[in-house]
Amino acid sequence: MLVFQNDYSEGAHPAILKRLAETNMEQLPGYGTDHYCEAAQEKIRQACACPQAQVRFISGGTQTNQLVIDTMLQPYEGVVAAESGHVNVHEAGAIEATGHKVLTLPQHDGLIDAGELREYCETFYADGNHEHMVFPGMVYISHPTEYGTLYTKAQLEAIAGVCHEYHMPLFIDGARLGYGLVASGTDVTLPDIARIADVFYIGGTKVGALFGEAVVFTKGNMPKHITAQIKQHGALMAKGWLMGLQFDTLFTDGLYTRIARNADEMADRIREALRAKGYRMVYENTTNQIFVVLDHATIDRLEREVRLGFMERYDDNHTVMRICTSWATTAESVGRLIDSL
Amino acid sequence: MLVFQNDYSEGAHPAILKRLAETNMEQLPGYGTDHYCEAAQEKIRQACACPQAQVRFISGGTQTNQLVIDTMLQPYEGVVAAESGHVNVHEAGAIEATGHKVLTLPQHDGLIDAGELREYCETFYADGNHEHMVFPGMVYISHPTEYGTLYTKAQLEAIAGVCHEYHMPLFIDGARLGYGLVASGTDVTLPDIARIADVFYIGGTKVGALFGEAVVFTKGNMPKHITAQIKQHGALMAKGWLMGLQFDTLFTDGLYTRIARNADEMADRIREALRAKGYRMVYENTTNQIFVVLDHATIDRLEREVRLGFMERYDDNHTVMRICTSWATTAESVGRLIDSL
Amino acid sequence: MLVFQNDYSEGAHPAILKRLAETNMEQLPGYGTDHYCEAAQEKIRQACACPQAQVRFISGGTQTNQLVIDTMLQPYEGVVAAESGHVNVHEAGAIEATGHKVLTLPQHDGLIDAGELREYCETFYADGNHEHMVFPGMVYISHPTEYGTLYTKAQLEAIAGVCHEYHMPLFIDGARLGYGLVASGTDVTLPDIARIADVFYIGGTKVGALFGEAVVFTKGNMPKHITAQIKQHGALMAKGWLMGLQFDTLFTDGLYTRIARNADEMADRIREALRAKGYRMVYENTTNQIFVVLDHATIDRLEREVRLGFMERYDDNHTVMRICTSWATTAESVGRLIDSL
Amino acid sequence: MLVFQNDYSEGAHPAILKRLAETNMEQLPGYGTDHYCEAAQEKIRQACACPQAQVRFISGGTQTNQLVIDTMLQPYEGVVAAESGHVNVHEAGAIEATGHKVLTLPQHDGLIDAGELREYCETFYADGNHEHMVFPGMVYISHPTEYGTLYTKAQLEAIAGVCHEYHMPLFIDGARLGYGLVASGTDVTLPDIARIADVFYIGGTKVGALFGEAVVFTKGNMPKHITAQIKQHGALMAKGWLMGLQFDTLFTDGLYTRIARNADEMADRIREALRAKGYRMVYENTTNQIFVVLDHATIDRLEREVRLGFMERYDDNHTVMRICTSWATTAESVGRLIDSL
Repeated sequence: MLVFQNDYSEGAHPAILKRLAETNMEQLPGYGTDHYCEAAQEKIRQACACPQAQVRFISGGTQTNQLVIDTMLQPYEGVVAAESGHVNVHEAGAIEATGHKVLTLPQHDGLIDAGELREYCETFYADGNHEHMVFPGMVYISHPTEYGTLYTKAQLEAIAGVCHEYHMPLFIDGARLGYGLVASGTDVTLPDIARIADVFYIGGTKVGALFGEAVVFTKGNMPKHITAQIKQHGALMAKGWLMGLQFDTLFTDGLYTRIARNADEMADRIREALRAKGYRMVYENTTNQIFVVLDHATIDRLEREVRLGFMERYDDNHTVMRICTSWATTAESVGRLIDSL
Repeated sequence: MLVFQNDYSEGAHPAILKRLAETNMEQLPGYGTDHYCEAAQEKIRQACACPQAQVRFISGGTQTNQLVIDTMLQPYEGVVAAESGHVNVHEAGAIEATGHKVLTLPQHDGLIDAGELREYCETFYADGNHEHMVFPGMVYISHPTEYGTLYTKAQLEAIAGVCHEYHMPLFIDGARLGYGLVASGTDVTLPDIARIADVFYIGGTKVGALFGEAVVFTKGNMPKHITAQIKQHGALMAKGWLMGLQFDTLFTDGLYTRIARNADEMADRIREALRAKGYRMVYENTTNQIFVVLDHATIDRLEREVRLGFMERYDDNHTVMRICTSWATTAESVGRLIDSL
Repeated sequence: MLVFQNDYSEGAHPAILKRLAETNMEQLPGYGTDHYCEAAQEKIRQACACPQAQVRFISGGTQTNQLVIDTMLQPYEGVVAAESGHVNVHEAGAIEATGHKVLTLPQHDGLIDAGELREYCETFYADGNHEHMVFPGMVYISHPTEYGTLYTKAQLEAIAGVCHEYHMPLFIDGARLGYGLVASGTDVTLPDIARIADVFYIGGTKVGALFGEAVVFTKGNMPKHITAQIKQHGALMAKGWLMGLQFDTLFTDGLYTRIARNADEMADRIREALRAKGYRMVYENTTNQIFVVLDHATIDRLEREVRLGFMERYDDNHTVMRICTSWATTAESVGRLIDSL
Repeated sequence: MLVFQNDYSEGAHPAILKRLAETNMEQLPGYGTDHYCEAAQEKIRQACACPQAQVRFISGGTQTNQLVIDTMLQPYEGVVAAESGHVNVHEAGAIEATGHKVLTLPQHDGLIDAGELREYCETFYADGNHEHMVFPGMVYISHPTEYGTLYTKAQLEAIAGVCHEYHMPLFIDGARLGYGLVASGTDVTLPDIARIADVFYIGGTKVGALFGEAVVFTKGNMPKHITAQIKQHGALMAKGWLMGLQFDTLFTDGLYTRIARNADEMADRIREALRAKGYRMVYENTTNQIFVVLDHATIDRLEREVRLGFMERYDDNHTVMRICTSWATTAESVGRLIDSL
């Protein structure tokens, strides 16, 4: 069976497994206070060209979103996100469980618009009743978005401009950041992200690690007593070095972006084939997720050989399916997928 | 200054003040365990034609919404509401503060549509990923709505039908219920509400009481240890009889609906005058709230004599203002308002 | 039946009812933005000799404790209280429901000890693992305590000293503050309280009001967007002036302390009689609560005529009962109680 | 440097690393729905002699405690634990952050007493005011306890008896369960734990795994929609098979208990040496944690060669230090430790 269902179907890049094995019996202090975490933090600061960055490692994306949003918002504030944002739709209410509302903006191919964000804020503060409403306290975007699309540098700067005008930190969910940074056509680099965002994370789970996300606070703005707060959220891993070691490996000799590029290249080939065969793709993008409209007969036929992801109903006869590549996708499996289309 | 800003600008109906004075030195047990609460509960059961109803008194609307929603939902469930629903917009995040998401449906003049509700539920359960989403666990509607509009009996029954199909209680926010029950053209009675809703409340604060809402659980479904839960929400009033006494008064000899009718009649007169003078009203309704489009010159002129409520920006030159009557509105002040239009 | 069960068995001082009636039809803006609230706030500032005090009115004690503690603590902080503190024992988990732990100190006749508080803090910060623990973030005491006892001015100052050394605000629960301020032997005045505490409240519910507590932030330290936060806690009363009016009345011509004195005087008479008749009182105090050890035969006999409060089991044959006086207790009923002992 | 600081200083048992490497590129479905999780669940059911057991894997202990307690309690309930219980002391308020109070019982060498538990419950329900208090809703014990001590089977059965009388599930924190099951002198087996507890977990993080705890619901009592609830708590690992694979390995051919025995044997040797040299141990126990009173000169001397854990101040000249062995401790390092004592 070919699997193009998601980008977390395999374990880790072999270089990571190798280092886990090599260091397995080294006795290390717990909770991320070890030298591997320290080394990884330093390499990330350098890759971000952000010497003052404060870095912490968290084991998964929902946990990271929950932690960042809850620790950076005041109790009377909510987080502004696209209607299609992961925190609004697919985290089982993890944000609300910490007491915060997700305030939604329209999505345009998964992106929010700086103009609409400004209008939202203007309307909010113009309302004499706004003390009876939830204050916009932070802006959450994902890059790439849930639909695989990317912001341009100018779009990110415009959003950050509105954020800062209204004293809201900009939080970028980078669960798939690697796949965004190396996509064809993007003008956004990791140092750009670190400069523009107030906090963001570099996804490991979907880009070569067994698990782990590196949260980066870029402006000396890491919440106070973050260790206690991570612990309180159930997110303080005893053997924190497991994440330090993985990120140290990923940020040595550019491994992170190198393996990310494979995913985008494989996706480009699939996109080309889909276009050639007349399939309709829902979003124009260049990252590792492809959303394609398939009729039910085609789906039935494909599913004998390939596992795809369900996205949403399109109409009575069609469904939007997701084809997802990753750092681990082989040219051979892509060839077989294309043949089967 | 004429005041048509809201329906909670005055104290209480004089009959209530009289009874408060008469009973002031009577020594009563606390926390709503007194005989006035008991009498009021019985009168409400009778007015609802719902002998099994369980009734509790809570001091305000936000508190009631927070309590009912939090105690009736499972942790993994959210409350479905119109985008314009009070719990979604104007309660400073009180629902999310208890850990629950507000799941929104489109509003049509403040109403939700049973068909759209069914579609929402169908789509939710059809999604293979729905364990990663917030379960729809209850439906919240307000009657009258935030825009003064009313559901018909058939509409309520259709919504309740979908609710029960998907095992969700239907919760009716009746902060202004009195003004809905006596509105011209409505076919919905209090017994209808009690029969159709699983839980609802009869607003006192806006309909003749100093404060207090009577929450009615209609199906033997009052959450366990409700006293402890009310206390935990900071909502257990020491001198609970103050609310029992007020509702006992309001539900003696039909006082509640009698004084509600005044508000609607006064609003009808104003609506007639507005129509006659060519003003545009945003919603067609027959209750105590009128939403009228006014140009800024008119607003400036009116505000010298009348205090109105701000609703929202309409366009560059116009604003939607709210004219609100109540049980206390006098024909004389309505006459003066009409003259000034 | 004589009732000495608690101090919230009657309505309000007649002067309050009179003003409610006089102002009943005055049209006032909502949510505590009216001129009665403003006047009451100013009178409280003067009575406290604290011109910078920020005052808000909240309808009940649990709600006030929940609001103050939740809005003044950081998420990683808990509130330090006596084991016997109301917030630890009798609020159905209202504090924990907002996410905060109650950290307990031993109680000595209901009081905490400044030395033990310091030791608690020293031990906490000396522990290398304290990032895995709940930070002491605020100190809560009640004055009078739950056992009717009082701190001396020196004790309060010593506690405040430790608080400030460890950057914790001192919060005084004054649900029965009036009965403490006028007790025989106390050297603590209202200006002392305002000077020593960082936040405290002046109880109305138990001292002459229908309901309402006046929260006083004494150091310009009222939490940001307090209106939104009160609303979010379900504690923003629509007709906020009802509390402004009551406190305005209580703080006009010293009514508050005048009526408080009655309770203490009546309690003194009962204490004298109990001593004369050889009863054992559990705590030495001079406020309106008396905790007396009664054998079960005496309880059975008394309960035919008097309603007392249950406190706790003493031994197989005795129970500790509470005798509680209030602003409304009459000399005649005290006489009858004494006769029946 | 010798390290006896804790039992999570090394990675995983080599057999686990081997299987991670072997299966690394196998494409597996996410979120614990894979065949390794299924196999591990079945092996755990068999090891527990509990065919109806429902098993889920969670990445850490605090997270597991938070999840189990929050999903099994009603909102008005708290969890009863020893004062010294991990959930009460060392989880940074993770339990309270979900809204639940930790209700404490005295600890006796880390253990709670069934008689004191019964008395707690009796007193609670006898109190007429208990609706104003937090209901005891679950009992939490750790086995081994935080002090390395163990319950006997009879003690566990007595506690479970009280639990069931008062309709409270019994939750056993087994973060170090392996070290308890193989300790000399214990009469408690894994099937006993599964029979007596309503829910418990088998610690992996401290007993041979990289990370992961296996939560076992023993009575068909796994909370509804547990996947959604795990997700909402930020605890749903994308690559859930990583935990399935580890537990599958640990529960193949008795690896889990085999490696646990090493820790206890090494600790026994150290205890023997300590006794021989006249050191004072604070608790009598036979598991992998040793709490020894050391004077400060000895600590200074030892710390040149050995890293120990700080426990607590004993007196001005002594400190209680923890010596901790694990599955990975070698006889050679134990020999060197003993020599240095």
